[in-house]
Amino acid sequence: MKNRVITISREFGSGGRTIGKLVAQKLGIPCYDYEIISKIAEESGFSKEYIENEAEKTSYFRPYGMMSNQDYMWTIQIETILDLAKKGSCVIVGRCADYVLKDRADCLNVFIHSSFEKRAERIVKEYGETEVPTEKRLKDKDKKRASYYQYYTDKKWGDYRNYHLALDSGELGIEKCVEIIVDLY
Amino acid sequence: MKNRVITISREFGSGGRTIGKLVAQKLGIPCYDYEIISKIAEESGFSKEYIENEAEKTSYFRPYGMMSNQDYMWTIQIETILDLAKKGSCVIVGRCADYVLKDRADCLNVFIHSSFEKRAERIVKEYGETEVPTEKRLKDKDKKRASYYQYYTDKKWGDYRNYHLALDSGELGIEKCVEIIVDLY
Repeated sequence: MKNRVITISREFGSGGRTIGKLVAQKLGIPCYDYEIISKIAEESGFSKEYIENEAEKTSYFRPYGMMSNQDYMWTIQIETILDLAKKGSCVIVGRCADYVLKDRADCLNVFIHSSFEKRAERIVKEYGETEVPTEKRLKDKDKKRASYYQYYTDKKWGDYRNYHLALDSGELGIEKCVEIIVDLY
Repeated sequence: MKNRVITISREFGSGGRTIGKLVAQKLGIPCYDYEIISKIAEESGFSKEYIENEAEKTSYFRPYGMMSNQDYMWTIQIETILDLAKKGSCVIVGRCADYVLKDRADCLNVFIHSSFEKRAERIVKEYGETEVPTEKRLKDKDKKRASYYQYYTDKKWGDYRNYHLALDSGELGIEKCVEIIVDLY
């Protein structure tokens, strides 16, 4: 069978990463998430912290003819994702994998979302409170993801046309989402 | 058990109506679609043809203090949908039922979509060719639905936040979509 890749895009706090991990576990295939950052670190020499903080900052302005650090990280990210997809079936969380693998792999593209209230509840439970108000944390992160996706793919993040399946994890529950994805795979 | 309503919004040609009917059949509950138009016809005195053609034309301009025919049909539509949801569990296709029943019934809100190519293929197969090119038929109908939804609900048609579940029927197949919805119900 051709390698089959499940890509999971998700709103911050929707439990998308957890769903990805559980799906992979059930299917007995790897789930890539932080591993991609490690790989970019290895290839580029940037630290993981730098990549985590900077990779998703889109750089609209750059010196003529020069590649920004972000663009450089993006090219390594593409290679890494293509390599992983070639290696075998897997789950990839985030990183515009749906776009990178378009027409390159047999993908099931999933988007996970949830209401603002449920996500706020979840991030406080998972990551604790911070000095930044929860609402601002959610909005900032979503905005960053949306603009990153838009910048590199020229498509709208969360647009239903980009996904085979979009699930409200807050209403349906994490377990049910996992079940649907596993079943579809 | 509380009445549970499945609302299905769909892109033209995605097979959403067929999915609704099959889901209802499997669950042994009614599926409302044209029935709502009949009801509006009965209540308003407008003919079914008029309603089908005119109800979704949003009327942005109207004489001060007057209700347009469209707004009048909309109010009957709201009453009809609320009545149907009160009567028992059911599937409702289209008609902004997800919005009308928000906080009024226990709903599973579903959005069905499919690629342009697959929808084009489907409408020619289902409805035959017409003088209007297929592409224009699809675009016109989608545009009409989107602006109708936006006008009366103040929300964006197809926005993932409005649905618990969005499915690409072209990729997943009609049968699989039916199965997922029946299972979630």
